[in-house]
Amino acid sequence: MKLNSHPTGRHFLQIPGPSPVPDRILRAISLPTIDHRGPEFGELGLRVLAGLRQVFDTRHPVVIYPASGTGAWEAALANTMSPGDALLMYETGHFASLWKTMAERLSLRPEFLGLPGAEGWRHGVDAEAIERRLRADTGHALKAVCVVHNETSTGVTSDIAAVRRAIDAAGHPALLMVDTISGLASADYRHDEWGIDVSISGSQKGLMLPPGISFNALSPKALEANKRAKLPRSFWNWDEIVEMNKTGYWPYTPNTNLLYGLAESLEMLLDEGLANVFARHRRWAEGVRTAVRAWGLPIQCADPALYSPVLTGVITPEGVDADRVRRLIHERFDLSLGTGLGKVKGRMFRIGHLGDSNDLTLLATLAGCEMGLKLAGVALAGSGVQAAMDFFSAHPQRGALRAAA
Amino acid sequence: MKLNSHPTGRHFLQIPGPSPVPDRILRAISLPTIDHRGPEFGELGLRVLAGLRQVFDTRHPVVIYPASGTGAWEAALANTMSPGDALLMYETGHFASLWKTMAERLSLRPEFLGLPGAEGWRHGVDAEAIERRLRADTGHALKAVCVVHNETSTGVTSDIAAVRRAIDAAGHPALLMVDTISGLASADYRHDEWGIDVSISGSQKGLMLPPGISFNALSPKALEANKRAKLPRSFWNWDEIVEMNKTGYWPYTPNTNLLYGLAESLEMLLDEGLANVFARHRRWAEGVRTAVRAWGLPIQCADPALYSPVLTGVITPEGVDADRVRRLIHERFDLSLGTGLGKVKGRMFRIGHLGDSNDLTLLATLAGCEMGLKLAGVALAGSGVQAAMDFFSAHPQRGALRAAA
Amino acid sequence: MKLNSHPTGRHFLQIPGPSPVPDRILRAISLPTIDHRGPEFGELGLRVLAGLRQVFDTRHPVVIYPASGTGAWEAALANTMSPGDALLMYETGHFASLWKTMAERLSLRPEFLGLPGAEGWRHGVDAEAIERRLRADTGHALKAVCVVHNETSTGVTSDIAAVRRAIDAAGHPALLMVDTISGLASADYRHDEWGIDVSISGSQKGLMLPPGISFNALSPKALEANKRAKLPRSFWNWDEIVEMNKTGYWPYTPNTNLLYGLAESLEMLLDEGLANVFARHRRWAEGVRTAVRAWGLPIQCADPALYSPVLTGVITPEGVDADRVRRLIHERFDLSLGTGLGKVKGRMFRIGHLGDSNDLTLLATLAGCEMGLKLAGVALAGSGVQAAMDFFSAHPQRGALRAAA
Amino acid sequence: MKLNSHPTGRHFLQIPGPSPVPDRILRAISLPTIDHRGPEFGELGLRVLAGLRQVFDTRHPVVIYPASGTGAWEAALANTMSPGDALLMYETGHFASLWKTMAERLSLRPEFLGLPGAEGWRHGVDAEAIERRLRADTGHALKAVCVVHNETSTGVTSDIAAVRRAIDAAGHPALLMVDTISGLASADYRHDEWGIDVSISGSQKGLMLPPGISFNALSPKALEANKRAKLPRSFWNWDEIVEMNKTGYWPYTPNTNLLYGLAESLEMLLDEGLANVFARHRRWAEGVRTAVRAWGLPIQCADPALYSPVLTGVITPEGVDADRVRRLIHERFDLSLGTGLGKVKGRMFRIGHLGDSNDLTLLATLAGCEMGLKLAGVALAGSGVQAAMDFFSAHPQRGALRAAA
Repeated sequence: MKLNSHPTGRHFLQIPGPSPVPDRILRAISLPTIDHRGPEFGELGLRVLAGLRQVFDTRHPVVIYPASGTGAWEAALANTMSPGDALLMYETGHFASLWKTMAERLSLRPEFLGLPGAEGWRHGVDAEAIERRLRADTGHALKAVCVVHNETSTGVTSDIAAVRRAIDAAGHPALLMVDTISGLASADYRHDEWGIDVSISGSQKGLMLPPGISFNALSPKALEANKRAKLPRSFWNWDEIVEMNKTGYWPYTPNTNLLYGLAESLEMLLDEGLANVFARHRRWAEGVRTAVRAWGLPIQCADPALYSPVLTGVITPEGVDADRVRRLIHERFDLSLGTGLGKVKGRMFRIGHLGDSNDLTLLATLAGCEMGLKLAGVALAGSGVQAAMDFFSAHPQRGALRAAA
Repeated sequence: MKLNSHPTGRHFLQIPGPSPVPDRILRAISLPTIDHRGPEFGELGLRVLAGLRQVFDTRHPVVIYPASGTGAWEAALANTMSPGDALLMYETGHFASLWKTMAERLSLRPEFLGLPGAEGWRHGVDAEAIERRLRADTGHALKAVCVVHNETSTGVTSDIAAVRRAIDAAGHPALLMVDTISGLASADYRHDEWGIDVSISGSQKGLMLPPGISFNALSPKALEANKRAKLPRSFWNWDEIVEMNKTGYWPYTPNTNLLYGLAESLEMLLDEGLANVFARHRRWAEGVRTAVRAWGLPIQCADPALYSPVLTGVITPEGVDADRVRRLIHERFDLSLGTGLGKVKGRMFRIGHLGDSNDLTLLATLAGCEMGLKLAGVALAGSGVQAAMDFFSAHPQRGALRAAA
Repeated sequence: MKLNSHPTGRHFLQIPGPSPVPDRILRAISLPTIDHRGPEFGELGLRVLAGLRQVFDTRHPVVIYPASGTGAWEAALANTMSPGDALLMYETGHFASLWKTMAERLSLRPEFLGLPGAEGWRHGVDAEAIERRLRADTGHALKAVCVVHNETSTGVTSDIAAVRRAIDAAGHPALLMVDTISGLASADYRHDEWGIDVSISGSQKGLMLPPGISFNALSPKALEANKRAKLPRSFWNWDEIVEMNKTGYWPYTPNTNLLYGLAESLEMLLDEGLANVFARHRRWAEGVRTAVRAWGLPIQCADPALYSPVLTGVITPEGVDADRVRRLIHERFDLSLGTGLGKVKGRMFRIGHLGDSNDLTLLATLAGCEMGLKLAGVALAGSGVQAAMDFFSAHPQRGALRAAA
Repeated sequence: MKLNSHPTGRHFLQIPGPSPVPDRILRAISLPTIDHRGPEFGELGLRVLAGLRQVFDTRHPVVIYPASGTGAWEAALANTMSPGDALLMYETGHFASLWKTMAERLSLRPEFLGLPGAEGWRHGVDAEAIERRLRADTGHALKAVCVVHNETSTGVTSDIAAVRRAIDAAGHPALLMVDTISGLASADYRHDEWGIDVSISGSQKGLMLPPGISFNALSPKALEANKRAKLPRSFWNWDEIVEMNKTGYWPYTPNTNLLYGLAESLEMLLDEGLANVFARHRRWAEGVRTAVRAWGLPIQCADPALYSPVLTGVITPEGVDADRVRRLIHERFDLSLGTGLGKVKGRMFRIGHLGDSNDLTLLATLAGCEMGLKLAGVALAGSGVQAAMDFFSAHPQRGALRAAA
């Protein structure tokens, strides 16, 4: 099978997910499939579930679906809502919009807050707007507040703790559901401390796995809501899974080989220490943004406090089709970048700085972007690669060099 | 990671799925993940979709879900039914029963035909009973007939063409939905010729892949029904997937690395030729049944015309806990067998004869069973291993030895 | 690449080496190659050298060659001998004979002890004959005694401690050189305790690696001899290697990826415990011999005290071409057996019971042999498979079931 | 096993061999080891031998050793020389010097031509000097002329065809032996056309394999010389290998798993076309040299006509310890560079531009060098990364983008 149309060299996969998968994980997922009802499997199951609770920073159950991330979105809604339920969602970008569309398809009635137009996609969730809306909902018709932690389409994060405070300040009983598909295991995330009821995530971002498994982290309140929720569901149902997970098994066939990879991923992340993992991504992100600033191109995220540690959206000048630039970069330099989605299609591209990357990977990525932008005729203010080299040189990564074990 | 608690040697995974995965496929799924929006991916997508159509023997769309097989069951129902719809299902065993339970959870009203008690699980679908029931349904309240092609819990197949004829004879408009999760790519299957509206299958059986992707093969009539079906759905929705598949892409992140494996699997199966694949499984199955008969133990499937080419259910004598035998075999001989499920729990075990197996693998499996049965104190009429050796010696596999290419 | 001309199932590689390689090791050797001069490499080098000393049971240097086993034979001679030197070698079989031929090619003058004819290949080294010969060599013209620990061509071991005692009893200064290519890590071996000067081994037998690296374990006396030895040599020279190995490096490019596999192999063997490893092989061997006896066929090794724990030679009846049987077994049952070599060509075949094997692997192997022998028209006294099943059932492997860690 | 002391990201292995190994090859070498006497093996053997002849551009035998490259050096000498034979060797750098030392150890009498001092290592072979020396050798005491095609320690190539013309012009019968360990499959090489008698190469450079196998390509004249050569040898002996290779087998155990990798490598190289492979390396080399020039640092190779397409030696300014720079780069940027060897130790470092690389890999490498040089306090004239980006942008690789197959 030919997976790279270029003659030699490793492809640079610098999209904001699927992220580059470490060799250790690729080898792990190629081990022979075992019996999902046998004794070794229970051991594996308990191990990955315990590790995931550490990554979500929760003492409550985490559900693993043998399905990709979009499924975990549906699971969060289907497990807690009844037909016709109203939701408060917040438009931070394309994925927030897709989640809203999904809610509508599932017969729910999402209400969409957010700033208008493409400019709205440059900002995070406005917690005060949420508080205002919840205060107005005196009848408690809104059953959940749904926000995206790290909007993969824009590179804008949102302050989830602030959303929690807003709900509490409004004294509103709505569930708080958070999509951290691309935030988990790259950006700081605290399921319990931030009072999240359902966290949604996937394998192919910070966990550095191929796509194919996804997660719901739950709160006791979410589990209560599950009992009353009337949306028809079977595959996504939490109750049976949570029950069987107590012994490390699943009610139906799990994705065995990706669970091998998950065990490896969790070992890597927890060995490094989550605080180090987060610091690593923040440093990478600042290095990449330093380059973008040197080019003189605007960063999609307009609020520096909300810069994503996972990806950076780069806005191309008026008249430059960002997708044409991306295609040229792919053809000439074997580098995949993220496309502009929805309202920003053709107006920006996204650089992923997550997964199995390092300073040189990111400098190669920036070099590919810089050459491609120039070849596409974009006038750049300066060399982003040079700026990023200066940044990475001046700011060594703490703990970059592990002591030989 | 330790995936085998025994000191050395390959584990024998002879459950009726997940089946033993060939090394070629394990290597393929460990290749680096690529961009699911990039040009190589579209090529891969078109290739696997074309290959799957050959395996389902259909000219119509096949949908691939990044979810395990249970999801494809839900997809078949969710895409074609509306809340409260009545279904005619047929109890051939545990998986037919689980599908019915799923239908209930999805707010449908399944009606369950079938023979009573555990004895009922030894037979296939009674097409005449279906015809009678459909003729009685003059108001066409029944929206679908749902049957299992190869019941994984029993090793009994059903005559799907006969079910089609029954529906036609009754002049009934119900859809025909067939679970061929463990039948596809091992037993003869003809989606178009047999007039099936929705075929459901998964990766971890005849396709010899790890679990994690699953399939719906469709008919034009099913696609029509999809437009009117009112069950809330989003992840499972056919329309967007079928549309995007035309260029080899998916609306949301597919399970990239299992698709690498699928491409390899399809190449292996189509190179061998499906007729040869089916003949290979029939021969293996007869070899295994020869052994069971020599032991003097009853085969779960009571109708020789319906013996499964994929697995054989072996009934243990009264008073012998089949699961105790299975555990003993696992501990002493590093061999995984399928457990008795539901109504036959503790009363039988299942031998898988599918996937990356050969004569010696199956003889080793039979040796493990025979030693374990004896160690468990079961009196055997004779040596099943000896009988199977005689059978395999006397019946060479056609095309067993490929000409050196 | 097609590495198996049969349609499905894992090939049974039951030759006495290369042995079946565990999946863990195959995955390890596929990790990316690193700089053999970088810091990680030194760590790897020190680890594998320390582990090898445990396996050879020595406190002295072990040299690893980036060359297959035949090279380690040449290294032992080239490092210790001068042109025209006389050696005492002992003909236990084909490999002893090949080593003698090599000595001649290297301009040495080997003298070959041993019993005459093919019958001689059914016995081990006669230590008394060696003692007699050494006592007669009053001028100490013989510079070394060279024997094979586990003769791979016959399945006969030799009592190395007895050879040491014979040399000592004769008060002779000759070096003791022992080929344990197929004995190491399967049969008990004690480089220091048995007073061996040069032990020769390879990767593709008890260490369960692919072929490609080989070993010389040394004694201080061998290192002394090295200083005076005049055979031209460079690649094989111990001195530079031993010196650089102190920091974990090699003077020229080592076989990096096989060293990854060696690290994994050593971890597996030492975790299991060498005493358990030896007991495991002895039990397997007895199971296989039980089968051969049941067939009524003679075992190549005529002395039960010297049965190899690694392989068993099976003599076919007069008039039966053993190689025709082997080919038939390969074609029909995808099982590779060892051929008869040299004096026993066509008269016997060899069953390997080493490497990544277990009871069921060996029963499958015996089933393949039994079916093949019958198909070739050989009249068997009884069922070897049945006898081996009885043996394995009656004699559980100690420590077969590891506690879940 | 931990093979990288940095937390994440792929290590950049930009030493002049072992080169970065493509994933396809790493997967291939992890396939289960097969019987080296079985029918599949013969097929594999014939295939790789045929492919190698294409890569060496010869119709004569190529010998594959299950040993690393240094062994192939010894093989070339041991197969053609007799004790005390005189050789004419040429000092182009460290590896030429090591080969000479080897010749001495093998009891040969090499004579070393070359320019004096470290400056001598900046030039290629002086064919006229060879011609003069051969003309003076009227008694034909010199049995061979030994030169290095691509000196790995300096990045200087030599004009092999000119050496051939020099020998012919002198009418001298000496054999021409050429070390193309790091030249083969990266730089143009023509064993037959250039009249080479023995070509020596290895796996871990242009063939993009891990180290562990090596090659001798022969001429009929070399095979004749082999018959008269008296150096003791056995493992290295050509005759038996060449004879058995006719059916695809080897006299002793070959390095099976690296041969899997070799089959994959040959398929990749021949599919791309050797002319494209050579052009690709030339372009990479010019890009790297453009960077070095921009830094204002001297290139080790003083003759532009002899620049190596495989590696570039970079001379650090007086007072700067090149190894300290290398270590800093390794620690900070996870990039391995080649050290200065022998006469140029501490005075230069080497950048490998071969194997599984591409423009972005090389730009990352140059970025690592540039940052490290600056951090080490080296004043650079300008940005090499910028210069290389400009070069790679302005000179697209011909055939860089394969048509989708």
